[in-house]
Amino acid sequence: MNGAESLVRTAEACGISVCFANPGTTEMPLVAALDSGRIRTVLGLFEGVVSGAADGYARISDSPAMTLLHLGPGFANSIANFHNARRARSAALNVIGDHATWHLKYDAPLTSDIVSLARPVSGWIRSAASSQSIARDTAEAIAAAGRYPGRIATLIAPANCQWDPAEGPAAPLASASPPAVADDAIRRAAAAMRRGIPTVLFLGGPGLRARSLTAAARLAEKTGCALMCETFPARMERGAGYPALARLPYFPEQALEALAPYKLMILAGAPRPVAFFGYPNAPSVLIPEGCESEVLAEPEQDVAAALEALADELGAPAKPKIPAHERAAKPSGPLIPPNIGAALGALIPENAILMDEGATTGFSAYLTSAGARPHTYLALTGGAIGQGLPCATGAAVAAPDRKVIALQADGGGMYTLQALWTNARESLDVTTIICNNRSYRILQVELARAGINEPGPRARSLTMLDNPEINWVAMARGMGVPGVRVNTADELVRELERALAERGPNLIEMMM
Amino acid sequence: MNGAESLVRTAEACGISVCFANPGTTEMPLVAALDSGRIRTVLGLFEGVVSGAADGYARISDSPAMTLLHLGPGFANSIANFHNARRARSAALNVIGDHATWHLKYDAPLTSDIVSLARPVSGWIRSAASSQSIARDTAEAIAAAGRYPGRIATLIAPANCQWDPAEGPAAPLASASPPAVADDAIRRAAAAMRRGIPTVLFLGGPGLRARSLTAAARLAEKTGCALMCETFPARMERGAGYPALARLPYFPEQALEALAPYKLMILAGAPRPVAFFGYPNAPSVLIPEGCESEVLAEPEQDVAAALEALADELGAPAKPKIPAHERAAKPSGPLIPPNIGAALGALIPENAILMDEGATTGFSAYLTSAGARPHTYLALTGGAIGQGLPCATGAAVAAPDRKVIALQADGGGMYTLQALWTNARESLDVTTIICNNRSYRILQVELARAGINEPGPRARSLTMLDNPEINWVAMARGMGVPGVRVNTADELVRELERALAERGPNLIEMMM
Repeated sequence: MNGAESLVRTAEACGISVCFANPGTTEMPLVAALDSGRIRTVLGLFEGVVSGAADGYARISDSPAMTLLHLGPGFANSIANFHNARRARSAALNVIGDHATWHLKYDAPLTSDIVSLARPVSGWIRSAASSQSIARDTAEAIAAAGRYPGRIATLIAPANCQWDPAEGPAAPLASASPPAVADDAIRRAAAAMRRGIPTVLFLGGPGLRARSLTAAARLAEKTGCALMCETFPARMERGAGYPALARLPYFPEQALEALAPYKLMILAGAPRPVAFFGYPNAPSVLIPEGCESEVLAEPEQDVAAALEALADELGAPAKPKIPAHERAAKPSGPLIPPNIGAALGALIPENAILMDEGATTGFSAYLTSAGARPHTYLALTGGAIGQGLPCATGAAVAAPDRKVIALQADGGGMYTLQALWTNARESLDVTTIICNNRSYRILQVELARAGINEPGPRARSLTMLDNPEINWVAMARGMGVPGVRVNTADELVRELERALAERGPNLIEMMM
Repeated sequence: MNGAESLVRTAEACGISVCFANPGTTEMPLVAALDSGRIRTVLGLFEGVVSGAADGYARISDSPAMTLLHLGPGFANSIANFHNARRARSAALNVIGDHATWHLKYDAPLTSDIVSLARPVSGWIRSAASSQSIARDTAEAIAAAGRYPGRIATLIAPANCQWDPAEGPAAPLASASPPAVADDAIRRAAAAMRRGIPTVLFLGGPGLRARSLTAAARLAEKTGCALMCETFPARMERGAGYPALARLPYFPEQALEALAPYKLMILAGAPRPVAFFGYPNAPSVLIPEGCESEVLAEPEQDVAAALEALADELGAPAKPKIPAHERAAKPSGPLIPPNIGAALGALIPENAILMDEGATTGFSAYLTSAGARPHTYLALTGGAIGQGLPCATGAAVAAPDRKVIALQADGGGMYTLQALWTNARESLDVTTIICNNRSYRILQVELARAGINEPGPRARSLTMLDNPEINWVAMARGMGVPGVRVNTADELVRELERALAERGPNLIEMMM
């Protein structure tokens, strides 16, 4: 057995079952070791697909995938989506091949400082020292990755640590339960809520899963508190049977307006809300003056148990009555964001997964899709565009029996369009809906916010994707995914119904 | 005037005339400042296009472009091609927007450690401290970027340092000439060459420009030394009128075989040759035992002057007779690499630029295109695939009157295919030739080298791009670039003649 085999056998023993990969020469022993094992290998034709897919896989399966990447530059291509994964608190075992340790000092063309590149996105990082210790390194990396709620564990595997002999795999390390919230925090939150002042329960992170949402609904029923969630949740259960959560608006002045009615904010699984960007004359922290805040549970704690304990403490009913939201009617008319949301609201199949990197379209579509059948909602967590298509790919690998819908802005979609090829290769059941508005619309809004109401040709052209116009149907066909263009809400409804009834990847390009 | 305007006006005063950009919210003041200035802005729909284009621009123009990127994740997408640019010793002023300094501590979603990400590719790095000092920072960055032969100077521009007031632009800093080689090094090289032992002059970096090559030809004529160049030159003048240089072969055993006849190696502008990868039982340094080496000029020195001084010292003729190479005949028959090289050899127009990321096709095509009309040859310097298309884009921006040809392997092409859109947007005169062999062929070779002669389905599939087959003509059309498929050398000749006679971007997909 060599080091590579000991790594792969250890990963298998620790429960890793999928490896998203784009390997190169320095990973050949690992490729050979994967060849004879049980781990499914999924090729991405760009590393941003690999890391984004690992994120989507972790969000849906609650377990880490392995990624296999090629030295510093190959890894660098994955950083943006690992940044998103880190913000989503997703678990991943990130294996990066490197030159043989004795070759590094010669500064060959592909040599670079991998640790410096990897540290900003890694919650755990190590460069293996020998083929004998790499199995133990792997077990430790996987334990670190899986520490609740999850992190990216980066293991750098020099080529000689892969091909030199090893004794055997390492045993899995024990995993710990999510850290419990102290009774004191629950009592303090209960005391604050008993005062009866206008209260918002601000949910995020693991606080948006079914158990947490049920507890939140109990609290709302008992105390009348409002329920709100962070702007970009990593994963939220949503639709019929779940309480409808308002998302905190994106721009700081709108967020402060939405929070203005409240004198108390209870934080459950979400950090205190901060502005996505700093603006002149706008605050960074989005808790209005005069609103107290109380931390019930940090994202790294057992949020669901804390919410349940709080609901019990306050005498909330065991089984809440969750108001039924009306499912949207199939829309007709122009292809505008509320109609797009209504089409989703009307047609999302039960138990589907909706990945929303719809950007300016997504914000509005969220509102009109509230009454959909129950589904899992994933958002762009870290602001690094290009997450949606790969994350949908990974979600589909994690849940082959669930329909995945990727609502994707065109600007971000262009970053990692190679994910479509992986969807075709793996016959993944992903319906991709492209919002083709031929612009970075959000930047046009931001230009206006910066006081540039009449941008000149250079500034304007930096926000436009219309010259030439991109044809997503042609590009998707080039990667083996069939697609259609739609120009009205009626056409969208017709094509979405057809697409969702099929199995396998397809694409709908909305000409907005 | 605000900080952003002072930055842009300083860049203009220092001679920056092009900005390759993919900005976001934190760069809006810079976008506004560019709007009113003289710098041409070129949008890339992915940051790997931006950095690769800056590299190509610098290689052809010998001056830095500005790049404008969005925080850590946006910059991260550019790292792989900045890695290649660093290995090419290309100059670039790399401006990365960041959160306002007072917003950083709140750890908003897009916050990350930009310095840690940027250090591995940056020869100079600074985060601006205020809007008052950012103009001076810019002048220092440009001076650092332009220090011979070139480096990437990264200036992080927090949003408030852009929008807060500034006094005015800074004046350009004086630039220094390339450091001269000491007379002693020239005398030592001359003494070694006078011994008359079998000698190879090993050229690289700035040693592959016209002046250096003429001096090298003089030395070859006088002493009979062989001329060889590094495997992946950043820029080499080539074809009729230039001496034909053998490239050092890629694999270590082949490189050692090619160098076996020589007892003396004179290094001029190239570091001593090292293996691209370390392999078990292969050396890292590719100078055969018993071969002495003498450094005439480091890549950071004035290589051309050193070669000329050496030629004078040895009494070489002032005007060398450069052997005429036979131009290839138009090939006929199967679409195999030697025929592809012959088609290029027969048809490359005078003064064209050939960007070669042809990988396994490129190695062979290099040989049969030796007799082409004089042209500039660019290679993938740092091994990070996905450089070819963007580098061609940047070269075309730098030289609007020269025809640019991108010979691009399909695997690497998929990394940064978005460059095609920029070619269409800017009407760049780039003919892209895709080597569609539906595989990472080099990895199939590397698998065999690692002893895996009969890979199983998982290993094999990690090297295959055939399921589904990629249609580059469809993808190019989706980005506004017309294309055709060819299946034989005869078709390639016909379509290449047509494509080269047109102006503007086009694409030929070779089904190999």
